[in-house]
Amino acid sequence: MENTQTTSIPSLRDVAKAARKGSYQLRALSTEDRRAIIQEFAQSLRAHSAEILRANEHDLRDAQALQASGEMSPELVKRLGLSKARIDELAAGLETIADMPEPIQQTLEERQLGDGVFLKKVTAPLGLLLVIFESRPDALPQIAALALKSGNGLILKGGREAQRSNAKLHQILSEVLSKHVSPAVVTLVEGRAAVQSLLGMDEYIDLVIPRGSNSLVRHIQESTRIPVLGHADGVCHVYVHADADPEMVERLLNDSKLDYPAACNAAESVLVHRDWWQRHGFEHLRALCPAIQFLSGDAASQDCGLPNVEHPRTEYGDARLALFVVDDVDTAIDHIHAYGSGHTESIICASNSVAERFVAEVDSASVFHNLSTRFADGYRYGLGAEVGISTSRIHARGPVGVQGLLTTRWLAVGNGHTVGDIKAGKWAFDWREIE
Amino acid sequence: MENTQTTSIPSLRDVAKAARKGSYQLRALSTEDRRAIIQEFAQSLRAHSAEILRANEHDLRDAQALQASGEMSPELVKRLGLSKARIDELAAGLETIADMPEPIQQTLEERQLGDGVFLKKVTAPLGLLLVIFESRPDALPQIAALALKSGNGLILKGGREAQRSNAKLHQILSEVLSKHVSPAVVTLVEGRAAVQSLLGMDEYIDLVIPRGSNSLVRHIQESTRIPVLGHADGVCHVYVHADADPEMVERLLNDSKLDYPAACNAAESVLVHRDWWQRHGFEHLRALCPAIQFLSGDAASQDCGLPNVEHPRTEYGDARLALFVVDDVDTAIDHIHAYGSGHTESIICASNSVAERFVAEVDSASVFHNLSTRFADGYRYGLGAEVGISTSRIHARGPVGVQGLLTTRWLAVGNGHTVGDIKAGKWAFDWREIE
Repeated sequence: MENTQTTSIPSLRDVAKAARKGSYQLRALSTEDRRAIIQEFAQSLRAHSAEILRANEHDLRDAQALQASGEMSPELVKRLGLSKARIDELAAGLETIADMPEPIQQTLEERQLGDGVFLKKVTAPLGLLLVIFESRPDALPQIAALALKSGNGLILKGGREAQRSNAKLHQILSEVLSKHVSPAVVTLVEGRAAVQSLLGMDEYIDLVIPRGSNSLVRHIQESTRIPVLGHADGVCHVYVHADADPEMVERLLNDSKLDYPAACNAAESVLVHRDWWQRHGFEHLRALCPAIQFLSGDAASQDCGLPNVEHPRTEYGDARLALFVVDDVDTAIDHIHAYGSGHTESIICASNSVAERFVAEVDSASVFHNLSTRFADGYRYGLGAEVGISTSRIHARGPVGVQGLLTTRWLAVGNGHTVGDIKAGKWAFDWREIE
Repeated sequence: MENTQTTSIPSLRDVAKAARKGSYQLRALSTEDRRAIIQEFAQSLRAHSAEILRANEHDLRDAQALQASGEMSPELVKRLGLSKARIDELAAGLETIADMPEPIQQTLEERQLGDGVFLKKVTAPLGLLLVIFESRPDALPQIAALALKSGNGLILKGGREAQRSNAKLHQILSEVLSKHVSPAVVTLVEGRAAVQSLLGMDEYIDLVIPRGSNSLVRHIQESTRIPVLGHADGVCHVYVHADADPEMVERLLNDSKLDYPAACNAAESVLVHRDWWQRHGFEHLRALCPAIQFLSGDAASQDCGLPNVEHPRTEYGDARLALFVVDDVDTAIDHIHAYGSGHTESIICASNSVAERFVAEVDSASVFHNLSTRFADGYRYGLGAEVGISTSRIHARGPVGVQGLLTTRWLAVGNGHTVGDIKAGKWAFDWREIE
């Protein structure tokens, strides 16, 4: 399939400039106007569903041909398909986003600095987002709605396999947008070269969000100085403490590993306290989790005739689970700090004091007690729409909702107050929090 | 002066590893223990002030020799000197930091996800900080105290000119630290090569804070993938609206430009509404601000016989101020977005509705109404200790207090809850905020 729609490189700077300029128009709109754009987009998706499905069928036919010749995986083809029901669901999702509370211009702190000088810290849009997504065309309306709700400009790069579906969805959005603001505020670009070029424009783009494979995320992290929201690895651990109830181990280890092994929040390693290991033995563990393919991570577990782990930091993404026997909770924490990816870890433990130490000391985005690692997810956390899961410590960490698309600004008002007058002793600071 | 203490490059990875490991010990200490470390450090500074002053005199003698031969600026030499009074002041400052409210493990959000599953988002240390500072040795205890208070590991690189003072201050801190945690948690390194090498260790270091010249900040921003907290430019604007009271213009423009022209929050450009310009004329403006050296930025102001601006985005750092005549508030906002650095802008204006639009739409870290730009400062904002001023939109923006050294973690507890059971319909999410 020829990629005929590659956006030309010289024009990309203009695209970024126009999207940024459009974002200033967008943030100047009222809450009601931004809500109306998203609602009209939802209505328009429903009204144009036949056209969307025609474009999608075209993409699907090409993809099935590629699948037949082995050039595309069945999973990718499967994620590509839309239906009337899915479009209705999408439209309903957009209406939910439209009705979310206003995220921007919200006061976070407020104080008087001195007589007649007031300061507040308010939420603000980040500016311009670059979102790169694969296959699934339904990501486009969702991401666009989140950007519009939060007052951000958006440049989208979709997968080549969903080119016609994405173009149709974007065209519908552009028609809605042009009644309110410059449609450039949400721009769709095509082609890898376009992405590569945009990743160099840190003067216009504030955040890159790659939604796709680990290798996509890693490639993007390595090729830009723009902050990247996401995670390349999910090497999650379950620690089984000495006093762990076998029934709890059965429930949580199976769910953490097997509920969806390819997910980033699936467990890749289990650390078993030496006392539990000596009391119950490997045969008991295997009986509790018969579908898990244990790998031996150390000498203690090598006697069980298991294959060896590849490396203590490996994301298997299937039923394999690396097994390590540890001396105590401190050794478990050290192991997690040495080999974990800082995504999600869970302790299975009856003692609250041990669990509290584990939860306080493990330096990961999500740390659980007696809970499956699979709960680390924006929807399950109750964040509404999920922007992504971040393993970075900067800006946003763990499952990220619309808050990850925001920054803050400091606004202050005075009445001709100067710093010179303070130095001259004419007035003095007198900070008072305003609740 | 030979730089004899350059830290060897191969050992720097071990330095970073040890500091990170030390930070885990530090965060595991109680609030009381971390407070005690800072208090003991303050006491020890007072007790060892004679030794500190001896080391400082040695540095000063070398610096004065370099100044005499023109190899060091008088400002740098001046900032280098300590005194008994300054050490007492420093110690008192540390005691204030010790007594600040506990910044870490504070709950920001809390909700029930369903029956028996509870989630909270808590503040956490970022991890390991790299702080690069110049000249002023009193920065070392302040930065160290902020890092210790917030549970972060710290690698410090001071200026060569303050080498002996820094080494002595660091030695005093190490002796205090070793009674509580690994002293590696705060490590002092020397030499530019060491910094260059550390800037490549993004697997250990979470944030770089350069405290120094614009060129230092820019150099560091360009040579690392680790997030950098700081600002290279401060191109701040004052906008004089049509209805601006001349007395207010006099107060605020003089203070914004002249109170401390070398500061990043000093004004570099004034945008004057065409109506104000036509009503009052340049001679009135010059009479209000006789010490400001106006530069002509456009055709309208060129008739006044002023020298031309270099570029509309220039940080002069002295009494020069670029003058532009603009058609309306929208043109002013566009000018700021095109040429500003996103640091601080102020509108002088009688009309609240115009001021509100300006404040809502200008995309800068700090936006003021009838207030000098010089107020953009962590101390003046009432943030307590200032970590820096950030013009980045990510993580922290504007004046940054100890909050800029924190990230968040998600902690959850269940009772064997699995995602599989939700899929099987055995229980359902029922999100409830806990106030």
